[in-house]
Amino acid sequence: MDRPGALAAVRAAVTTFAADLGAERWCVALSGGADSLALTAAAAALRPTTALIVDHQLQPGSASVAAAAREQALNLGCVDAQVLRVDVGSSGGPEAAARRARYAALDDARAGAPVLLGHTLDDQAETVLLGLGRGSGPRSIAGMCPYDPPWCRPLLAVRRADTRAACAELELTPWQDPHNSDRRFTRVRLRNEVLPLLEDVLGGGVAEALARTAAALRVDTDTLDDLADRSLGALRVGGALDADRLGELPEAVRRRVIRVWLIGGGATGLTDKQIRGVDALVVAWRGQGGVAVPSALRGQRLFAGRRDGMLTLHTEPVGNMENCARA
Amino acid sequence: MDRPGALAAVRAAVTTFAADLGAERWCVALSGGADSLALTAAAAALRPTTALIVDHQLQPGSASVAAAAREQALNLGCVDAQVLRVDVGSSGGPEAAARRARYAALDDARAGAPVLLGHTLDDQAETVLLGLGRGSGPRSIAGMCPYDPPWCRPLLAVRRADTRAACAELELTPWQDPHNSDRRFTRVRLRNEVLPLLEDVLGGGVAEALARTAAALRVDTDTLDDLADRSLGALRVGGALDADRLGELPEAVRRRVIRVWLIGGGATGLTDKQIRGVDALVVAWRGQGGVAVPSALRGQRLFAGRRDGMLTLHTEPVGNMENCARA
Repeated sequence: MDRPGALAAVRAAVTTFAADLGAERWCVALSGGADSLALTAAAAALRPTTALIVDHQLQPGSASVAAAAREQALNLGCVDAQVLRVDVGSSGGPEAAARRARYAALDDARAGAPVLLGHTLDDQAETVLLGLGRGSGPRSIAGMCPYDPPWCRPLLAVRRADTRAACAELELTPWQDPHNSDRRFTRVRLRNEVLPLLEDVLGGGVAEALARTAAALRVDTDTLDDLADRSLGALRVGGALDADRLGELPEAVRRRVIRVWLIGGGATGLTDKQIRGVDALVVAWRGQGGVAVPSALRGQRLFAGRRDGMLTLHTEPVGNMENCARA
Repeated sequence: MDRPGALAAVRAAVTTFAADLGAERWCVALSGGADSLALTAAAAALRPTTALIVDHQLQPGSASVAAAAREQALNLGCVDAQVLRVDVGSSGGPEAAARRARYAALDDARAGAPVLLGHTLDDQAETVLLGLGRGSGPRSIAGMCPYDPPWCRPLLAVRRADTRAACAELELTPWQDPHNSDRRFTRVRLRNEVLPLLEDVLGGGVAEALARTAAALRVDTDTLDDLADRSLGALRVGGALDADRLGELPEAVRRRVIRVWLIGGGATGLTDKQIRGVDALVVAWRGQGGVAVPSALRGQRLFAGRRDGMLTLHTEPVGNMENCARA
């Protein structure tokens, strides 16, 4: 387990990250596990650090796990260490509910400071695989962002094994979360079953490859999203869009402009097929009727249509669908 | 195995593809397996079809497998059916060598016509996973292209199970390639071990999700590649690039411009790190020295540097590196 230079690698990652971050003080989210414990050690050595320990109250003894982590944080030189007790709901599944409660508690407690999170390269690889399984587009496999204020992830290029080795170098005993070996959790099975099999079949280096892919995809999707935002500003006329000028944009930008425009008009849960339908009003215009898009409007249906060279959105009371489709 | 409508699904996919393809006649690459056999049946019903059967001569009895496929093709109404005997080399591994020999033979024999290939949605999903394992960027997980002249892949949205069911509907007996269950092949293990495990862990729909992701990524990468090609044309001054105007481009476009420019100047096997090094000459310019980039030039090293606001490429004899790095 012990790797030469693991602690140095963790420290270097946090130091590099800190150089680009203006904050004079910061918080670190500490579970007591190896990742966040190694992160806390490196962070506290650099800047005044407040450790935020979320007690999800989901496992027996969680309060004493949190108290032990708090002790470790203060021993590592944190200027403060707070235990945040949260009540985890159930909507969206246990993992999503715990995540939501955790981030809300951290956001409440951070008092304006950025929050360092202990996600490693291995977490990133798992996130990419989760996103692949959803198939909801390039953004979903672009993984976690290193800096998404107030959230900072300085360890995204550090292996999980290195955080464990760093704790060993510091003679710290990290907490072993029993959830990390619970096969009911999708992420646990990706970590313990899928990734080792992929490593075996593809000849190693898979976690690094997934993380590299995520980083490259993030650059691509950020660039295309930015281009679309700028184009949307230029093409918007009131609530409508100039269809001819929209048609001159490259496909990936055009579809993003349509997507953001529809969402701004009240659409929710858009599918690729609906976006293609609206795109056809632009690039395959032959006088066709409006395209129904889902929205949260009660008793109303939202339609995107084309009139006088402009894409427009309008609503129809539910039940009038046939009339509208003929329009 | 038998699915209602499988044959109709294969036929619909080929018919839709044909509508966008101008060719009056076409070839189909036929292995005798279910995918290409179902494709051949659908293709021969639509246009004058020449079946091209590659005999890789790698397995005992391959000549009789090829002869049987040829018979099936003629029975299905192909206007011609040719067996192409190839000698497979070994460079780059057995799968890559066979693929190279196969495509070369098909290209030689097609006599100017497009060639339909039987790749299915399941093949696409495997290709995405293979690309992920390489980690060589978004392009490598964008999968196979539906139309990359002369290669046509009309079945990329059709499941492999449907091609088998279509053969059953037609009372055709497809050839079962023993290589398809040989665990020495990476693709076979992805198909038989990794994808079923991923389906189990992620709750199904993984192959479709991977194919959907590939399609969306292809649109994104095509758009960014096109933007980069146009920008390169505008920024090029002789063999050099205008660094200031390059610096105004968004990151994903800028890096692509640099990559294409370096390759045009003789660079090969570029890494992300080298491209970032050249990018730093543009966006983090502080008078630093040139960046060495790998090239196939014998006895010479290729360097990208910045002078008078321009990015330039120059070569140095090997051994003069120190002088150059100081320059």
